[in-house]
Amino acid sequence: MPGNTFGKLFRITTWGESHGKALGVVIDGCPAGFLLDEKDIQKELDKRKPGLGNLSSTRKENDKVEILSGVFDDKTLGTPISMVVWNKDANSKDYSNLKNVFRPGHADYTYYLKYGLWDYKGGGRASGRETVARVMAGAVAKKILNKYETLIESKVITIPFPESKNEGDSTGGIVETRVKNPPKGLGEPVFDKLNADLAKAIFSIGGIKGLEFGLGFKSANLKGSKNNDEFIIKNGKIRTKTNNAGGILGGISNGEDIIIKIAVKPPSSIEKEQSTVNKDLKKVKIKIEGRHDSCLIPRIVPVIESMIAITLVDHLLRQNAIKL
Amino acid sequence: MPGNTFGKLFRITTWGESHGKALGVVIDGCPAGFLLDEKDIQKELDKRKPGLGNLSSTRKENDKVEILSGVFDDKTLGTPISMVVWNKDANSKDYSNLKNVFRPGHADYTYYLKYGLWDYKGGGRASGRETVARVMAGAVAKKILNKYETLIESKVITIPFPESKNEGDSTGGIVETRVKNPPKGLGEPVFDKLNADLAKAIFSIGGIKGLEFGLGFKSANLKGSKNNDEFIIKNGKIRTKTNNAGGILGGISNGEDIIIKIAVKPPSSIEKEQSTVNKDLKKVKIKIEGRHDSCLIPRIVPVIESMIAITLVDHLLRQNAIKL
Amino acid sequence: MPGNTFGKLFRITTWGESHGKALGVVIDGCPAGFLLDEKDIQKELDKRKPGLGNLSSTRKENDKVEILSGVFDDKTLGTPISMVVWNKDANSKDYSNLKNVFRPGHADYTYYLKYGLWDYKGGGRASGRETVARVMAGAVAKKILNKYETLIESKVITIPFPESKNEGDSTGGIVETRVKNPPKGLGEPVFDKLNADLAKAIFSIGGIKGLEFGLGFKSANLKGSKNNDEFIIKNGKIRTKTNNAGGILGGISNGEDIIIKIAVKPPSSIEKEQSTVNKDLKKVKIKIEGRHDSCLIPRIVPVIESMIAITLVDHLLRQNAIKL
Amino acid sequence: MPGNTFGKLFRITTWGESHGKALGVVIDGCPAGFLLDEKDIQKELDKRKPGLGNLSSTRKENDKVEILSGVFDDKTLGTPISMVVWNKDANSKDYSNLKNVFRPGHADYTYYLKYGLWDYKGGGRASGRETVARVMAGAVAKKILNKYETLIESKVITIPFPESKNEGDSTGGIVETRVKNPPKGLGEPVFDKLNADLAKAIFSIGGIKGLEFGLGFKSANLKGSKNNDEFIIKNGKIRTKTNNAGGILGGISNGEDIIIKIAVKPPSSIEKEQSTVNKDLKKVKIKIEGRHDSCLIPRIVPVIESMIAITLVDHLLRQNAIKL
Repeated sequence: MPGNTFGKLFRITTWGESHGKALGVVIDGCPAGFLLDEKDIQKELDKRKPGLGNLSSTRKENDKVEILSGVFDDKTLGTPISMVVWNKDANSKDYSNLKNVFRPGHADYTYYLKYGLWDYKGGGRASGRETVARVMAGAVAKKILNKYETLIESKVITIPFPESKNEGDSTGGIVETRVKNPPKGLGEPVFDKLNADLAKAIFSIGGIKGLEFGLGFKSANLKGSKNNDEFIIKNGKIRTKTNNAGGILGGISNGEDIIIKIAVKPPSSIEKEQSTVNKDLKKVKIKIEGRHDSCLIPRIVPVIESMIAITLVDHLLRQNAIKL
Repeated sequence: MPGNTFGKLFRITTWGESHGKALGVVIDGCPAGFLLDEKDIQKELDKRKPGLGNLSSTRKENDKVEILSGVFDDKTLGTPISMVVWNKDANSKDYSNLKNVFRPGHADYTYYLKYGLWDYKGGGRASGRETVARVMAGAVAKKILNKYETLIESKVITIPFPESKNEGDSTGGIVETRVKNPPKGLGEPVFDKLNADLAKAIFSIGGIKGLEFGLGFKSANLKGSKNNDEFIIKNGKIRTKTNNAGGILGGISNGEDIIIKIAVKPPSSIEKEQSTVNKDLKKVKIKIEGRHDSCLIPRIVPVIESMIAITLVDHLLRQNAIKL
Repeated sequence: MPGNTFGKLFRITTWGESHGKALGVVIDGCPAGFLLDEKDIQKELDKRKPGLGNLSSTRKENDKVEILSGVFDDKTLGTPISMVVWNKDANSKDYSNLKNVFRPGHADYTYYLKYGLWDYKGGGRASGRETVARVMAGAVAKKILNKYETLIESKVITIPFPESKNEGDSTGGIVETRVKNPPKGLGEPVFDKLNADLAKAIFSIGGIKGLEFGLGFKSANLKGSKNNDEFIIKNGKIRTKTNNAGGILGGISNGEDIIIKIAVKPPSSIEKEQSTVNKDLKKVKIKIEGRHDSCLIPRIVPVIESMIAITLVDHLLRQNAIKL
Repeated sequence: MPGNTFGKLFRITTWGESHGKALGVVIDGCPAGFLLDEKDIQKELDKRKPGLGNLSSTRKENDKVEILSGVFDDKTLGTPISMVVWNKDANSKDYSNLKNVFRPGHADYTYYLKYGLWDYKGGGRASGRETVARVMAGAVAKKILNKYETLIESKVITIPFPESKNEGDSTGGIVETRVKNPPKGLGEPVFDKLNADLAKAIFSIGGIKGLEFGLGFKSANLKGSKNNDEFIIKNGKIRTKTNNAGGILGGISNGEDIIIKIAVKPPSSIEKEQSTVNKDLKKVKIKIEGRHDSCLIPRIVPVIESMIAITLVDHLLRQNAIKL
């Protein structure tokens, strides 16, 4: 079954290769009568623009969103919202030498295993550029969450080798993302628990290697009496005294902050010479020149937040459905 | 949208409350003509039996599987396989004092938020007992994986407080599970990547707080040149020299072992007195007496392996579909 | 992808063979806090009982529903509702002579084509007995529709050969079903239009060969000026003067009666001798003795109504979801 | 749940309003390594071009397909195929007088009921123009069916008032479509039977009011002994002597021609004056001037064939999946 659709009720379908004509997303299920224009999307898209720091690619991605359907007189119609970004600076000269080579850490080999061929230009569909579509959809989801005064915020925990680019190398890092004031009661046990769907959403982004909710691995080293969050009454409402669980109990949001910690691997594209093999099973040496991020973190944060927003809105609609 | 179905082509639907009449699963999509009998299922079910060690509940769960449909003359028909385990030792006397109380760390409060009511007897659907159904389905999936000589093995990394039960407390722990010789080419980018679906599968189990693939959080502390797995030729086949990625590249299995590390929280049910609140927003003290596991690890391992097996078989069928 | 689940938000999964241990259904997505007990189900189940007239099988199907999960203190929990009917009068002696024979009009041959084997006892999963599970689920859906004062009523248009049984033969017939006072605004263009999903629901029942909405084939013989339903104001509300469309415009219910006409074929099981072939490609003669309906209509009506009710409730929840 | 996606494994998502910027489709699940270019699509698209006869609109729809993703070096990549047609001749002046009026027979009123607003320009998403996207996807499906030597052919049974346009009126009609040499074994009981999914596919097209498989309503007037198709051996293969069933038994294709008869209503847009109401509940008279088809048949035939082709390919992949 094809894998380019995410969400059940707020459902996004993305398409596009790194060096193809364009990248896009179709959102089906966005409620009608909702104010939306291209500026709402562009604002989020600009957050994943490269060239904002010394960790990012020098490819000029002045991505400009175009809304093709689903909006009429600046209001959503309830019909599918199709959005596109045209690929303008797709410098295909960089990639011809990689035609038959499986780059270490990349998806060339596994795409070849799966499909029998692959788009060797810039990684095709496996490129991080694919996330443009996620951010466009995330912008719509975030606007819906605004109505609930729900905010998503992130902070960098660590980037161990910030100057790795100078050595032709790259660095990993860790991010913490928090959902503040999330809607309560979201999550559909026993399989579509909110944490399960958030984990899927985040691990579907390239480069993610680890994930924790609340105390995460630290919980494993605690006794129950220390790990349990005591229920208390605060301002007449049920709250928890601590938030070791990270805002989700039994797969359902309890209204406390949702706290997620995410491990991001160092980018696989490095200029340093590497050994690998090609399609003919020959050993070869490669240097991946071109314009690459030496750290994914600055540009992956808006993508992580987008996937979280999409998941939350999807569950909002799911929770909505069962209230007769 | 309801959340009790998992998988797309090998699709399981589970049902049942901890202290209801029975627990069950319907598997839809199991290929036909495949030898299957109750012994295949019982063997796996026995692995999650409590009372095997000093960490487990003393509830006698001599769960006995009954196959109700989908098998004819010991062969699968291609029609839905319905399996049931009857609840025999559901001692409902234990729970009457918890009728209106939200137990810390449990799902009572969030179920109440979501549904407006909850089954207070033993946690109802939020009980770990729900996993009986997952293990029955996992047994069928494992039998299919046998044909591919794929094995799933687990080892305990740590259980920090093995004697916590004596203090009326509980302990967390960490497990590592490996899929040996997994089928290659499984995973459906960009959202249904194999790691994304495995993460969802595992986080859908109660009590999981952290997850890593391959080096996991350690990858975040490496440079790309150290983290990338070099492709090599070994016995005429493409392999990787190291397996830092944990067997999945670009969301697709590359044939190396799939390596997953999982953080399990300490069980929330402890005999020690705890503060909490009830439905009337009053503060109360509770001691959760009864028969509880002081550590989830021994009994959660077959559940983790089952969810992994189900996910792999689902993706096997998905990969199968696109080969015309 | 497996085909034993119907509906998206009010989702039913059915299982069971005609001569297996039992037949059942799991309903996932039923709203919580809703009064439900076995009598609600039994009442509907009794409507498809055979032996009520001279057109029906003499098999004693005193089907008795048992609710196994999802209901607590007579209220729905929001968790899956599992219901079962045990097969008691499955007289398997009748079928041994049919082991390798493809009965004309039956699914033996196509199941063999698809799955490589088939359950020759009473048609297995392809038996009309499968519809027991649909009626159990339909009973729950009908109870939800009661809250909206929506009624489903049917009348027989024709049964051309009511005495066909005496000749060892069978008869077809035509039924008209009306949904009175349906909820407005149901249907999800452009593919999940209400009429499209109703058509699927009804054609999924064995023996249906034709279907019309509103004027149906008669519409094809009209000019637009005669076929269009004029909008008028009646009691301060927008209504249509005629109802040629049958209550659905652009795939969405407009509040007028939904009118459906259904052609039912004569049952394929007849006592008259027939020519056919067997698995070894040999020509054989068969007489299908045993207890068969000579007309499907009396017992298919509650099944049709159940499938309509399930589809309407599913669309009710779908419409609910998008109202933020 | 949103309704703009059709199919499970060969899955299409369509978008676009009649007078918006563009119309498009994303196909997810198309097998990789398959030759495809824009000419394959254009050929089918030209079949639904208006102005080919005196029954069609004079709107110049020189629809030109553009493939935006999923194809690399003229081969499918296995990634989503995004295709677009730009709206060029969207003469929006025609529609301003209809801003608040509910046109009889149209979806204006029901879209308003459902979404609280509607795109009054040319019907928006409810326009027949939406089917452009279906035909683009159908072209890909037809190309896949070519490999199986499966053909889809249609003939007009009746168009009762071919000169209705001159009177400012419109006419309905009946079409018969046949699938010749369909793959065997397609269809997933008990809900996703091939006939059920074909019925949904066809009824999802605007203007369809009736549908029959094989003898259809005539079957209802036959005895079983006449209606049953006798199995015979022909050229060493199992065939049926007659094909009253229309190629599907028990919801699964048996290899005989699939025969479908379809009733198409007269177009609702007519120049003749009609009575109706507006949003303010006032009675008004309207004449729908502009460029409209006076009969849907010539242009709906490629749409019907496309939906059938898409359904067959989807079921081909579904059947593929379960063959381990």
